[in-house]
Amino acid sequence: MKKLLLVFAIVFIAGCLPAAKDKITQTSTIDALLAGAYDGDMSCGELLGHGNFGIGTFERLDGEMIVLGGKIYQIKADGKVYRPAINTKTPFATVCKFRPETEFSIESADYKTVQSIIDENVSNQNSFAAVEITGIFKYVKTRSVPAQNKPYPPLAKVTKTQPVFEMNDIKGTIVGFRSPAFVKGINVPGCHFHFLSDDYTQGGHILDFELTSGICRVDVCNKFLLILPEGDLLKDIDLSQDKSVELHKVEQGK
Amino acid sequence: MKKLLLVFAIVFIAGCLPAAKDKITQTSTIDALLAGAYDGDMSCGELLGHGNFGIGTFERLDGEMIVLGGKIYQIKADGKVYRPAINTKTPFATVCKFRPETEFSIESADYKTVQSIIDENVSNQNSFAAVEITGIFKYVKTRSVPAQNKPYPPLAKVTKTQPVFEMNDIKGTIVGFRSPAFVKGINVPGCHFHFLSDDYTQGGHILDFELTSGICRVDVCNKFLLILPEGDLLKDIDLSQDKSVELHKVEQGK
Repeated sequence: MKKLLLVFAIVFIAGCLPAAKDKITQTSTIDALLAGAYDGDMSCGELLGHGNFGIGTFERLDGEMIVLGGKIYQIKADGKVYRPAINTKTPFATVCKFRPETEFSIESADYKTVQSIIDENVSNQNSFAAVEITGIFKYVKTRSVPAQNKPYPPLAKVTKTQPVFEMNDIKGTIVGFRSPAFVKGINVPGCHFHFLSDDYTQGGHILDFELTSGICRVDVCNKFLLILPEGDLLKDIDLSQDKSVELHKVEQGK
Repeated sequence: MKKLLLVFAIVFIAGCLPAAKDKITQTSTIDALLAGAYDGDMSCGELLGHGNFGIGTFERLDGEMIVLGGKIYQIKADGKVYRPAINTKTPFATVCKFRPETEFSIESADYKTVQSIIDENVSNQNSFAAVEITGIFKYVKTRSVPAQNKPYPPLAKVTKTQPVFEMNDIKGTIVGFRSPAFVKGINVPGCHFHFLSDDYTQGGHILDFELTSGICRVDVCNKFLLILPEGDLLKDIDLSQDKSVELHKVEQGK
């Protein structure tokens, strides 16, 4: 009986661990979010079952999400950081069980330079990479988005009047992903980063930053699980168009 | 001890079943295959761990794959059907644990009409659908592809001289997927079907068909797991270009 129990335990652990390793999980698609699909299908609790690290947004587009150390933080349009209820839903989020295998330090670098340094260190552009940068930032510029009411306007309309926050000489963490070009329409190709200050009082979707000194940790992931909302939440949205230009404007806040 | 064993068994089964339900798993991307990435990373045995139903190809592009009832069939360029060794690798395949929730009969319909009927019955174009059609076919036109040697030519070059097979009044099964538009670059948007005759002697990638009478079963899937080859198999391939035109030619054999 003890042997049988041991076999079960081994099979269970062996079956679950590799499934989670190097896997990024995402709910819904970025183009659905661009189109105004802000009704979430997955709860924050369910999301944490897929990962302890990541970024996203909340039902009704109520702020920017950062998942760090297994906790979810919500940077609302007032610029403040909240802890959402576990049953709060998300219409779009990307998470993983963060186990970095690469680590390097970065000194005095702006956003563009940091991206180049990551590309140098993680040269396979056709892989997914979860990225964490902890350090002291000379400057961080973020945005958040306010909760919307139905009928939901497209994301590009919301971000036109988005609140922008500027922080100077601040300790904090960047959380995000560098995704391959072929995720176009599903997620953001290239880097997509959010920020959270060490004192948990400031953050948001990163528009620009200048890193004074920091440590960058990268978890290269070869598995990507897309979970679409069940039922007809996305049914009537046209997801066949190329929305790259619209996405770039929304991401960069331009 | 017995109770503990029971708990383990329940947790194991409960943990595994929902993870597999309505999930399509794919190895590598269609654009990587178009570019000539014919070196497989996943074995047929591993593939069967992800599903008992699906389509794909084999290492070195050695024929068309059809997975049906948990068995893998290989339709080689000689038009014959083989059973590959379990350690044979695949550079591109899409499978699921097939549990159809929709079933309808189709009479006297060509390829285009069948696609319209599926669209009518499974109207959410932003979902994945695993499709099986068993029946009597008045006509089926398929192709296969011969094993390639390095340096691998792009798929469009291989299919220019592909062997084509025509079958009349034949009983068999269509296996394939209808994928949403946003998988562009990753898989084939719309329908992608392979065929296997009931006597396991003929089949291939479907170019055209006319169904006399059949039953169509559909498993709508909301989860899509992409597993990229580990290491650098895809590293130096440019996957940022739109290859829709090239894909259409390859798929339709034109």
